[in-house]
Amino acid sequence: MITASEQVRITDVGPRDGLQSQKTLVPTAGKLALIEALWSAGVPAIEATSFVSPQAVPQMADADELMPAITVPAGRSLSALVPNQRGLERAVRAGCREVAVVLSATETMNQRNIRMGLAEAIATARDTLRDAQAQGLATRAYIAVAFACPFEGHTPTERVHALSTAMAEAGAGEIVVADTIGAAAPSDVQRVLQTLLQSLPAQSLGLHLHNTRGMALANAWQGLQMGVRRFDASIGGLGGCPFAPGAAGNLATEDLALLCAQAGLETQIRMDALVRAIDVAETLVGYPLGGCSLRWIRQNKEMSI
Amino acid sequence: MITASEQVRITDVGPRDGLQSQKTLVPTAGKLALIEALWSAGVPAIEATSFVSPQAVPQMADADELMPAITVPAGRSLSALVPNQRGLERAVRAGCREVAVVLSATETMNQRNIRMGLAEAIATARDTLRDAQAQGLATRAYIAVAFACPFEGHTPTERVHALSTAMAEAGAGEIVVADTIGAAAPSDVQRVLQTLLQSLPAQSLGLHLHNTRGMALANAWQGLQMGVRRFDASIGGLGGCPFAPGAAGNLATEDLALLCAQAGLETQIRMDALVRAIDVAETLVGYPLGGCSLRWIRQNKEMSI
Repeated sequence: MITASEQVRITDVGPRDGLQSQKTLVPTAGKLALIEALWSAGVPAIEATSFVSPQAVPQMADADELMPAITVPAGRSLSALVPNQRGLERAVRAGCREVAVVLSATETMNQRNIRMGLAEAIATARDTLRDAQAQGLATRAYIAVAFACPFEGHTPTERVHALSTAMAEAGAGEIVVADTIGAAAPSDVQRVLQTLLQSLPAQSLGLHLHNTRGMALANAWQGLQMGVRRFDASIGGLGGCPFAPGAAGNLATEDLALLCAQAGLETQIRMDALVRAIDVAETLVGYPLGGCSLRWIRQNKEMSI
Repeated sequence: MITASEQVRITDVGPRDGLQSQKTLVPTAGKLALIEALWSAGVPAIEATSFVSPQAVPQMADADELMPAITVPAGRSLSALVPNQRGLERAVRAGCREVAVVLSATETMNQRNIRMGLAEAIATARDTLRDAQAQGLATRAYIAVAFACPFEGHTPTERVHALSTAMAEAGAGEIVVADTIGAAAPSDVQRVLQTLLQSLPAQSLGLHLHNTRGMALANAWQGLQMGVRRFDASIGGLGGCPFAPGAAGNLATEDLALLCAQAGLETQIRMDALVRAIDVAETLVGYPLGGCSLRWIRQNKEMSI
């Protein structure tokens, strides 16, 4: 299923998903330094911020200033999360050309996250996608808590299937299957992807994984084996979800990049520069970061893998 | 490839591979307490010690006293590593009924580990297996540095294939493909197993994984998908290899047990009791242990997964 030198597109969501749960406010200049370090490491795509309510997520209150201050190197992709049409308007005003909408797969998670029921959340995501496309933006749609919900437990696979196809029909360029609380094992990824692949091509799917149970990398490998080539990851494993009790850090960008490199898959990422980006992220949050491979990578930065 | 409720046999090698690299000598009573805690957690097989030279591995100097002091619950398996016929004699005298021989896949690793060249090491492993079988013992044969060698780099897959089939022909009941320094990615496991499975049934193969690059669990999952049902793991990820620079901890027993549980595979292991075994191991070594899942497991010991 995997052919050497195939491209894998890693979107670093550290500046958004990684930072949003940090209690200490990171200054805009710090976020810009992190994004610059990620571009320098060759990271092809970054989710930089989210245009949510500053009251709900104070860490993202500078989205309107941050976004236009980012220089995007040729061929790279910069995106932001937008919860609704108002967020989309702000994103477009800030110069954003790619947006992600979020739809949680359970009633309770939508209520807690955006104070809407599932039906209203679907309508909001559809409307936002339609407006984004009308303005020529590239789009992604997250299906959050796609494996388990902190409030409702196991998420029915058929629900994830129905929501994913609904978002694809609404025109989302990528459906991001999100293990928001890091509950999935590779067997769960296999089951959910098998179902989704009945209706959607692997190229349209992405995986967003958290390492709560230590299975994020094994889950990514399962996705790769089933043809998924788009993954969210976070520099140094930075992350968590402020609305989802028990959510730990994201899949670390360095862990996935190393796995891909050893499998002969091309990510564009340079490991030595990625380590410098981890250093920047550590400075911003004030504590040590790092995926499961970081100790080894620090000792083998010049490796030919 | 994976059927729910299939059995996966995890051999906890913590008391041997985990402890052998510890500088502080662990008293025999401490090792017995750890082994008792592992039995209590349902662990089906334990590699308790190795009958090597006390000068070479001081931590294993009590093998002759430790082995006969261990009570083996019905249906469980207790084994020891033996480097040669002399080690085998000691093991048998100590009451051991299952032994593992070690054959490194590279010339230099054999020289460093047992001061023999590869040809002599093959002959020694063969002789030891023959004597063990003559006495009715169950046997395993490790193929060490099966993916990469700290001295020679990449290990040729055909060499691993040849050594594995040689050990199977010499009567080894299980061929343990060992990533001694934790260099493998799942793509490497796939490549090596594909080759071995040309000659050997999956039931005869085991995987021994280290987490140096954070890929141990993804590697185990790859093995499971290809039909491997025997794995070495170490309580709390305890481990390393004193002869292999750069080797980090073993695949953690709790990480593999959790992955299996979520996949519907049966390991016999009870997670709440396994956490108590980790506590015992931490007391012995004096520092915190734990695989990538432990923080989550500690918060969810009573889970129904």
